[in-house]
Amino acid sequence: MLKQYLLSPGPTAVPERVLLRMAHPMIHHRTPQFSAIFAETKRMLEQVYQTSNDALMLASSGSGAMEAAITNLCSPGDTIIYVNGGKFGERWGKIAAKYGVNAVEIKVQWGDAVEVAAVEAALNANPAAKGVFLQASETSTTTEHPVREVARLTANRDGCVTVVDAITALGVIDMPMDDWGLDVVITGSQKALMLPPGLAMIALSDKAWALTESATCPNFYFDLVTERKNQQAGKDTTAWTPAASLVIGLNEVLKMMFEEGLDNLFARHALLAKAARAGVAALGMKPVSTAPASSATGAFVPEGVDGGAFVKYLRDTMGVTFAGGQDHLKGKIIRIAHLGYYDVFDITTAMSAIEIALNRFGHPVQMGAGVAAAQTVLAERFPAQG
Amino acid sequence: MLKQYLLSPGPTAVPERVLLRMAHPMIHHRTPQFSAIFAETKRMLEQVYQTSNDALMLASSGSGAMEAAITNLCSPGDTIIYVNGGKFGERWGKIAAKYGVNAVEIKVQWGDAVEVAAVEAALNANPAAKGVFLQASETSTTTEHPVREVARLTANRDGCVTVVDAITALGVIDMPMDDWGLDVVITGSQKALMLPPGLAMIALSDKAWALTESATCPNFYFDLVTERKNQQAGKDTTAWTPAASLVIGLNEVLKMMFEEGLDNLFARHALLAKAARAGVAALGMKPVSTAPASSATGAFVPEGVDGGAFVKYLRDTMGVTFAGGQDHLKGKIIRIAHLGYYDVFDITTAMSAIEIALNRFGHPVQMGAGVAAAQTVLAERFPAQG
Repeated sequence: MLKQYLLSPGPTAVPERVLLRMAHPMIHHRTPQFSAIFAETKRMLEQVYQTSNDALMLASSGSGAMEAAITNLCSPGDTIIYVNGGKFGERWGKIAAKYGVNAVEIKVQWGDAVEVAAVEAALNANPAAKGVFLQASETSTTTEHPVREVARLTANRDGCVTVVDAITALGVIDMPMDDWGLDVVITGSQKALMLPPGLAMIALSDKAWALTESATCPNFYFDLVTERKNQQAGKDTTAWTPAASLVIGLNEVLKMMFEEGLDNLFARHALLAKAARAGVAALGMKPVSTAPASSATGAFVPEGVDGGAFVKYLRDTMGVTFAGGQDHLKGKIIRIAHLGYYDVFDITTAMSAIEIALNRFGHPVQMGAGVAAAQTVLAERFPAQG
Repeated sequence: MLKQYLLSPGPTAVPERVLLRMAHPMIHHRTPQFSAIFAETKRMLEQVYQTSNDALMLASSGSGAMEAAITNLCSPGDTIIYVNGGKFGERWGKIAAKYGVNAVEIKVQWGDAVEVAAVEAALNANPAAKGVFLQASETSTTTEHPVREVARLTANRDGCVTVVDAITALGVIDMPMDDWGLDVVITGSQKALMLPPGLAMIALSDKAWALTESATCPNFYFDLVTERKNQQAGKDTTAWTPAASLVIGLNEVLKMMFEEGLDNLFARHALLAKAARAGVAALGMKPVSTAPASSATGAFVPEGVDGGAFVKYLRDTMGVTFAGGQDHLKGKIIRIAHLGYYDVFDITTAMSAIEIALNRFGHPVQMGAGVAAAQTVLAERFPAQG
C-alpha cells in the first residue's frame, strides 16, 4: 500500500461526495429531471462567474472552449492580439492560424506577467483588432496576468473584447466577470471546479455576443449561438449530448463552494498560495513567477537535481503527484497545486514530500524547514485561543 | 420510493462496477499510470472495432466526432453524399453546410433503410464525391442501413470513402470495420459502451487517412492527425486533456464485454431485439422500421393515445424511462432500448410497463400478452433442462 496524493494543477483531487454523486445511476439528459439539475447548476455557475450572462457548458476539455472563443468571435482575415507567456498563451496563436485569423503576439518572458503598456501599444498598433486573448492564470508558469487592467483597455474600443482563459483562475481568485468587464471567460472542470476533466464552460458579455453576429469562422459542435438558445433558462438543455455525469458532479461541487462561501474560498486559496511560496523559499528554491498565481506555485528545483527524475520519484516512489515543467521549463521546475479541494495539510504534505525527496536526491535541506515556513502562514486559518 | 428503470437508447444504464470504478480517486492523465490504462483501453476498443487501425478517443459527444469526420476528410467545395433517413442522417448535411462542403442528400423515408442502388446512382452522378456518409443504425427511427454493401460501392472508387456513424451499432451488431471495408467508424460512450456521455471514438482506414492529407477544412480541437500522433502506441496520450474518468470507465466496460465474449454479446443483442419486436407486435403496435435495428425497437403508440403524454407517464408516474419520437415522429412512437447493459428481464419489464400504461391510457390490451410473446423468444437464452 502506498497512499496516493494528487497535488498537480489539473486534474485536481475530486471530493468524495462528488465522486459518489457521480456514481449514482445514470439519468436521461432529455428529461425534466436532468433539466432541473442543469438549470440549477447553470445558475450557481453564473454566480461563480459573477455574471448576469449565460455561462454555457460544453462537453469538451478547455482547449475546445478556447477554439470556440476564436471561431465564434472572428472571421478569417481578422486580427487578434494574444499574450504568449507560456504553453497556454501560445495556444491562442495556434488556433488562430488554423482559421486564417491573423494573431499578433505579445511575447512575454515565461514567469512574467504581461505589461499593460505592451497590450495598449499592441492595441494602438492594431486598431482593427477584434480582441485581446490571454490567460488569467498561465498554468505552465504559475503566473497571473492583469486581466482587469487589460479589460479596461478594450472597454472603450468598439468591437474589441477581452477574452480570458480562466481555466486555473475561476473559483480561485475573485474575478467578477461583469464588474471587471471581462468579455469572454473560459474554464474547465478539472481545476478549481474539482471534477474529472471533460466539461468546459464559457460565458460571453453582450459585447462579445454582438461579435458573434458577424463572425464567419466555421463551427458546428462549438457553435455558441446554438448552445445559448438551448441552454437558456426555460429550455435548460444542450445542443449536443451533454457530459451528464460531469454536469451532475458540478451541481454537487457548486453546492460545496457556496456552503464554504466565495469569500472564504478565495481567502483559502490566497492563504495556501502564500504558504506554498513561503515553504519553497525556506528551502532555497527560486520561484518561477514574478507574479505568482493563487492556483499553483512553481519553483525551480535546485542546481544538480534532475527535475524530471525528481517529479517522477515523488510520484512513483513516494505516491505524491506534482507537475513538472513544460517545454523549456521541462526538467527544471516543480509545480505545487493548491486550487480546488485543498487545505492546510495538503500544503504541509507537499512541503514535507519535497524535503524528503531533496534529501534523497543528495541535496541536503533541513527536514521541516519548508513545512515550518508554510505552517507559520497557515496558522492564520485557525483562530487563536485562550 | 419509485424504483427507476432507464430503457432509452442513450444514455443507457451504466453497470454498477463501472460506476464504482469511475468513483475511484482521480489520477493525473499525464502519467505512465494513466497511459497504461489508456493504451490497454485503446487496444481493447480496437478489438471491438475489429480494426488494425487506431481507434481514437475524443472528449466530446458523438456529434463532435461526426464533425471531425467531415473537417478531416474534406475541403470547402468538395462534394459528399449523405443518407438522410432520420434525425442523425440529417446532421451530416448541417455540418457540411457549415464548412462549405457540397452535400448531396439521399432522402429516405423515415423507418426505411437506404437502397443500395440509390447510393450507387448518387455515386455515379457525383463521380468526384469524397465519400458516402451514413448511419449504421439510425437511432431516431430504430433502423439499420446496409453499411457493408455501401462500403463495397466505394471500395474501388479512388479517394471515395464510406463514413459510418455507428453510435448505436458498434458493440451491438457484428460490424468488422476492416473486413467490411468501412473507412470511418464513429461511436459514443453512452450507448452500447455503457458509460455516461462525454467520450466519442473514431477510427479511420488507410484510405481515409490518405484523404486527411489534402483536406483543408479548418479544425483544431478535432484535428485527428494530431490526435493520432499522440494516441499511437508508445505515446499513449491525447492531444488535449482527455475525459479521464470516462476512459477509465471504458477500460472496465471493455473488460466486461470481453468477459462475455463478442459473439455472445452480439447474440444477446439480436435476441433482445427479436423479443422486443415480438412483444410490441403482440400488443398490436406497428413497428416504426422496415429494417429494424438490434439497438432499439420503435413502435407506434396506438391511435388515440398521445405518445408524448404516454412516454411522460411511463417515466414520471411509473419510473420507466423510454424515448419518444423526434421531429415528425414526436408524440407518435415509443422507442425501447436494448443496447448495452440489458438482458431478458429488462425486456419483460419494458413490455409489462407498456401494457400497464396502455390500459391506464384507456387503450385496453390483455395484461401479459406482450410479455408472453417476448418471453417465448427470450427463453432461448436459457438451455432446456431434463
